[in-house]
Amino acid sequence: MNYYKHHVFFCTNQRENGAACCQDHDAQFFRDYAKTQLKKLKMSGSGKCRINNAGCLDRCKEGPVMVVYPDAIWYRYENQADIDEIIEEHLQNGRVVERLKV
Amino acid sequence: MNYYKHHVFFCTNQRENGAACCQDHDAQFFRDYAKTQLKKLKMSGSGKCRINNAGCLDRCKEGPVMVVYPDAIWYRYENQADIDEIIEEHLQNGRVVERLKV
Repeated sequence: MNYYKHHVFFCTNQRENGAACCQDHDAQFFRDYAKTQLKKLKMSGSGKCRINNAGCLDRCKEGPVMVVYPDAIWYRYENQADIDEIIEEHLQNGRVVERLKV
Repeated sequence: MNYYKHHVFFCTNQRENGAACCQDHDAQFFRDYAKTQLKKLKMSGSGKCRINNAGCLDRCKEGPVMVVYPDAIWYRYENQADIDEIIEEHLQNGRVVERLKV
């Protein structure tokens, strides 16, 4: 069994040169929101899910992005409703959210 | 095809309360070393490998740890030779380094 069933990485990188980056879209806020929601749902921990910050995932122009491993599914999100949908559909029910895939 | 064939996350978290953490073992140095080596080998980029920093991966007592996705293989490393072996065996040749697995 994998150590985490779903291991989710949010790019929270802030680029300093004015170039596109995930943190321009408040990525840290959405990462923190996802982490809080998973804790509320008691979905956090080994055998379950973990939400992590990551350094630049190098898909800056497509951002803000997150990636769900080991599924290797990448998402772009816009708001809390998108995060809620990814949690409910993908992390709880194992269904990829096609409309948010990048 | 996955965006990255191998996506490697090094925990580089520094805990402030004296508890065990990966950064106590110079995790940032080893992450930077891995990134440099992969660039030299021209193994970096989409369709190939990416080395990322991550926040706390929550396996602190087993650290320093890194995880290779989508394979979901976790390693503990001690020195540059361990990193070299993971790069050569796992990332180049697709063979898990059993002696370093956690």
